[in-house]
Amino acid sequence: MPLLHPDRLFPAAPEVRGIARKIFSEIRDLPILSPHGHTDPRWFAEDAAFPDPTALFLLPDHYILRMLYSQGIPMETLREGADPKHAQEVWRLFAANYHLFRGTPTRLWLDYVFQELFGLDVRLSRATADVYWETISEHLATKDVRPRALYDRFRMEVIATTDSALDNLEAHAAIRNSGWNGRVIPTFRPDAVVDPEFSGFRTNLATLGAMTGEDTSSWRGYLAALVTRRRFFKQQGATATDHGHPTAATANLSRGEAETLFRRVTRTDEPAAADAELFRAQMLSEMARMSVEDGLVMQLHVGSLRNYNPVLLAKWGRDQGADIPTPTNYVHALHPLLARYGNERDFRLILFTLDESTYSRELAPLAGHYPSVILGPPWWFLDSPEGMLRFRQHVTETAGFYNTAGFNDDTRAFLSIPGRHDVARRTDAAYLAALVADHRLDEDEALEVARELSGPLVRRAYKLE
Amino acid sequence: MPLLHPDRLFPAAPEVRGIARKIFSEIRDLPILSPHGHTDPRWFAEDAAFPDPTALFLLPDHYILRMLYSQGIPMETLREGADPKHAQEVWRLFAANYHLFRGTPTRLWLDYVFQELFGLDVRLSRATADVYWETISEHLATKDVRPRALYDRFRMEVIATTDSALDNLEAHAAIRNSGWNGRVIPTFRPDAVVDPEFSGFRTNLATLGAMTGEDTSSWRGYLAALVTRRRFFKQQGATATDHGHPTAATANLSRGEAETLFRRVTRTDEPAAADAELFRAQMLSEMARMSVEDGLVMQLHVGSLRNYNPVLLAKWGRDQGADIPTPTNYVHALHPLLARYGNERDFRLILFTLDESTYSRELAPLAGHYPSVILGPPWWFLDSPEGMLRFRQHVTETAGFYNTAGFNDDTRAFLSIPGRHDVARRTDAAYLAALVADHRLDEDEALEVARELSGPLVRRAYKLE
Amino acid sequence: MPLLHPDRLFPAAPEVRGIARKIFSEIRDLPILSPHGHTDPRWFAEDAAFPDPTALFLLPDHYILRMLYSQGIPMETLREGADPKHAQEVWRLFAANYHLFRGTPTRLWLDYVFQELFGLDVRLSRATADVYWETISEHLATKDVRPRALYDRFRMEVIATTDSALDNLEAHAAIRNSGWNGRVIPTFRPDAVVDPEFSGFRTNLATLGAMTGEDTSSWRGYLAALVTRRRFFKQQGATATDHGHPTAATANLSRGEAETLFRRVTRTDEPAAADAELFRAQMLSEMARMSVEDGLVMQLHVGSLRNYNPVLLAKWGRDQGADIPTPTNYVHALHPLLARYGNERDFRLILFTLDESTYSRELAPLAGHYPSVILGPPWWFLDSPEGMLRFRQHVTETAGFYNTAGFNDDTRAFLSIPGRHDVARRTDAAYLAALVADHRLDEDEALEVARELSGPLVRRAYKLE
Repeated sequence: MPLLHPDRLFPAAPEVRGIARKIFSEIRDLPILSPHGHTDPRWFAEDAAFPDPTALFLLPDHYILRMLYSQGIPMETLREGADPKHAQEVWRLFAANYHLFRGTPTRLWLDYVFQELFGLDVRLSRATADVYWETISEHLATKDVRPRALYDRFRMEVIATTDSALDNLEAHAAIRNSGWNGRVIPTFRPDAVVDPEFSGFRTNLATLGAMTGEDTSSWRGYLAALVTRRRFFKQQGATATDHGHPTAATANLSRGEAETLFRRVTRTDEPAAADAELFRAQMLSEMARMSVEDGLVMQLHVGSLRNYNPVLLAKWGRDQGADIPTPTNYVHALHPLLARYGNERDFRLILFTLDESTYSRELAPLAGHYPSVILGPPWWFLDSPEGMLRFRQHVTETAGFYNTAGFNDDTRAFLSIPGRHDVARRTDAAYLAALVADHRLDEDEALEVARELSGPLVRRAYKLE
Repeated sequence: MPLLHPDRLFPAAPEVRGIARKIFSEIRDLPILSPHGHTDPRWFAEDAAFPDPTALFLLPDHYILRMLYSQGIPMETLREGADPKHAQEVWRLFAANYHLFRGTPTRLWLDYVFQELFGLDVRLSRATADVYWETISEHLATKDVRPRALYDRFRMEVIATTDSALDNLEAHAAIRNSGWNGRVIPTFRPDAVVDPEFSGFRTNLATLGAMTGEDTSSWRGYLAALVTRRRFFKQQGATATDHGHPTAATANLSRGEAETLFRRVTRTDEPAAADAELFRAQMLSEMARMSVEDGLVMQLHVGSLRNYNPVLLAKWGRDQGADIPTPTNYVHALHPLLARYGNERDFRLILFTLDESTYSRELAPLAGHYPSVILGPPWWFLDSPEGMLRFRQHVTETAGFYNTAGFNDDTRAFLSIPGRHDVARRTDAAYLAALVADHRLDEDEALEVARELSGPLVRRAYKLE
Repeated sequence: MPLLHPDRLFPAAPEVRGIARKIFSEIRDLPILSPHGHTDPRWFAEDAAFPDPTALFLLPDHYILRMLYSQGIPMETLREGADPKHAQEVWRLFAANYHLFRGTPTRLWLDYVFQELFGLDVRLSRATADVYWETISEHLATKDVRPRALYDRFRMEVIATTDSALDNLEAHAAIRNSGWNGRVIPTFRPDAVVDPEFSGFRTNLATLGAMTGEDTSSWRGYLAALVTRRRFFKQQGATATDHGHPTAATANLSRGEAETLFRRVTRTDEPAAADAELFRAQMLSEMARMSVEDGLVMQLHVGSLRNYNPVLLAKWGRDQGADIPTPTNYVHALHPLLARYGNERDFRLILFTLDESTYSRELAPLAGHYPSVILGPPWWFLDSPEGMLRFRQHVTETAGFYNTAGFNDDTRAFLSIPGRHDVARRTDAAYLAALVADHRLDEDEALEVARELSGPLVRRAYKLE
């Protein structure tokens, strides 16, 4: 029995399922655009083989780590999988706990890779752990499962990485110089140099100065350095920036206020929390101003308390699956930025949330009004069939489809990309089929919208044309 | 092919659809009650023809303006449609962008008018823009599409307008004196004289004094003037008041505190924000007290940041589709008012929200407890098929059907009224059919509830008997 | 016609309904575990007959009282039902208003008892009120409807009561000493001795001292007394504690700070609100610490403004159906407690909410990460078919099934327990059937999950093995 049913994620009523099938068949094989993600550009530069199944699937995936940890499996045990001697043992532990992922998107994404890439057709479990290990390991040794081969096999049109403002983008240069025709583009992510609470902020500013030849100890030089780095990213193919802030706060300080604040937050390693928040707020507005000037699309990911678990942070560092969302306000927070730049017709501000109560209350009304505002797809915990359905159900009636940005796979798990797009396209098809089935939309319109969501709206939102 | 399918908005599974059809057939032709809306009473007084399609459908409809603006069409271009020389050109622009409204209620409402009133049977698009223009223009020239004829054709039982506390209601008097038998009633909307931040507040108070012969520079005279105006509205047929406040804050100040606050907010054109908020809060409680005394139903519409876009406000004035909802608290905010008046059995407080997170958390529990509290239908951005379904799904299990107020069309687009009630009745039928199909409700009960929601519950909530 | 259809609450599409039937048939007859509820242990100790229908069904049920009160029926009228002379009259009033409960879970629960326990097969209404009264009264007089007989008939495995920390648990001792083999266990509920705003707090502390021989006027003695009471409860069979706080605030004060705060809140009958809140916060952390030590599972029920209606409170006392939920924050509030105890693998913290916006935003991410955190079932206003479906739809994709705790009936209405579990199991079956129907889960997995939710996950969460 195959792991995946061809009708998965389609509504069960035959009247609707038939429509969903038809819509999906129109978009299933369209090229994949991946305008926001976290793959490592060196993979494409070096085109080396991927490591063993544990290192490939388990250790870098915070969705998997958090679920196993939540059921009492110690992080120590899981981390032992990084040692090749213990890797298969940890894989068996994961396999024995695969039932924990029932009803989660992780299950759908993994089953897709297992079946489509490795031809597996029995469910992962304690009993099949070794079959999986061996089958996957064999495939990983072949050239078919190297990054560039997969890029082609996945029918990718473009993939964006996320890169520190301080990154020299040498992997991107290596890709371009290699003669390979894949399109791997960087994204300008300046958190490390705009957030005074970011680890090493003051050192980062010094590095920024050294990279750009600007005096980053002055507000003016600091801003000039950022303009320079953005220009460099754009030259290397970037079309967008990305900002991961705890809140959506923005500010319009006067030049004098901004200079004074800059001095305060750069004078110490422990700036006051309110100063740090106000500085981040001002910097979002500065970034918007620069976007208006240089045309880079601005992405805003807010509302997560990072590294919420101090015990794990102390022992294992960042990104252990212990980030927890918080209530998020957009309407008051974004007012300063939008008041100044929201009506710019060539500016793009793509908003993401982890707080679903904002969909119908704030985000859809903002996107349904401002020419600059576009809604990004459901993010992180909400990147799931139910999450995507709720997004469309809460957003479409106010913002329509044309103020949304298509899908982001948002992953560092390169192998999972087609599976993630598969879930997204099936869920779009399911949603559209429901509108057709109850005659809110004609079928020709639904087919057109499905195609738009899979390509043109992504290209337009991210200026990928 | 007709624009509208007879089964639109009914669940797709045949078992459920059949039940929905049966329920809807019981209520489709019931009279329309419109207890809250924004039509212009002069239309009914003068019974003049409506203007051209652009002036009729596009320019006054903030749902349409905001969507077109969000896609980069400048307000200047749209506003040119007010000039008869450019009206058809702007209509064509709208037609060419009709796909933006896919999946929105605007599309459903417009298609209803296009088909039912103007007999159109091809979709609006760039290609059909001129056919639409000509067909609609022809109809508008006939007597069949005048306000009074439409009132009858729409099978209306009553329509309420929304009128400033300072309005002399002469159009309403003219309607009554005309001998026409339509029931057009005013609603007392005192924002301009109870909100210290309302434009012209101090002048408005002087006008209020002049209209009533009361000394509105004193707290006592001010309250007496409001009582007088409410009495006048009631004499002119009003059964309700309506209050559009930024928050639901209420207060129970002592007489001395209230007098002092009144002096503070009337002494300046720029009262402190906290004073203004507290004054509005106190005035909601005063309005509740007056409602207990004079029997007028109290409607409360809160939670919208009005005129959020300062650029549009400066250039084009209020109501350009740039109002954005905010998180709204009811439970703490309403406590003062409810502590004092909530248990009054003849008092009616109809609550509206733009924050769906309050449905199950605050609104249904309040309505399911207080004899005075009734839930208004989903409002504004939430007046949509999905919005109405979510309302029932979140509210019914705690508040039942009998603590809700039926439907409000809430529109100044008179022609869209039957289309809006059609969507509401179909959605009620769909929701009830689902309860019958999974045996939570017997069919005879669902039919009774559907009839109650279409008439008796509206009459009871708004004291329209 | 029976009151209940065998397919109730199953999805209408035949493809899905068939799967739901199959899943439900696997779990319908499994034993009932009731790990959180409010039945009176004396019922099981004394095994006396239940009183008349009004005293049994109506007067103790705040769901019923609030709905009748919301429709203008005075509390005075309802309370007259406590007088046997007026009991049947009040029953008739209830019967005549039974339509108010259409679409509510109360209707489902009551119909279940009426049909399954009393064999009634006509709907309750004004016309059938007396038939109901007589039929029920006859049954209540028999031995079949006594507490112990019902415990067996309901196939109960265990039932937990909720008991004040100051309760001597003599009813529980009587049950054990009676030789009856039912398992009725207490739950340690210390609100009266940890909340400085609880009525009689200072007297309660004196009582606590007297019961334990500790000096509860000192912080050290107070904590020791709580340890002693917890030990006593555990000896009497308790496996859990329960905490009903207005917010989820927790704190990690130093010993000195805690002592000072303890002195401040015990020195007066009216502690400052901020002190009271901080003390409750500190006590949640202390309770967590004690749970880590003694192994009692910690339940946290937060987010309700109790006795919101001062008029009813003054006249009729607490628990008149006037508790209203508030917006609730978990992520910041629980941080101190989780930072210290969240990673303990034998600690269990079961979280409940009345604020559905926290499901996907805070609760699922917390439960999907911390080994200690488990999500309790939808509580109170959310204990309903739609409420339970939304819970699974918002929680499963992040936290899975295995970080949830099965169902709580949470009731003092003993007769309604099987009806409540019936609704919960049917709703689980409906949710799982939908996952199977759209191929997100295989049928064998859905059957296993359904069985887990009905027993093993409850036993594990509440340490009932």
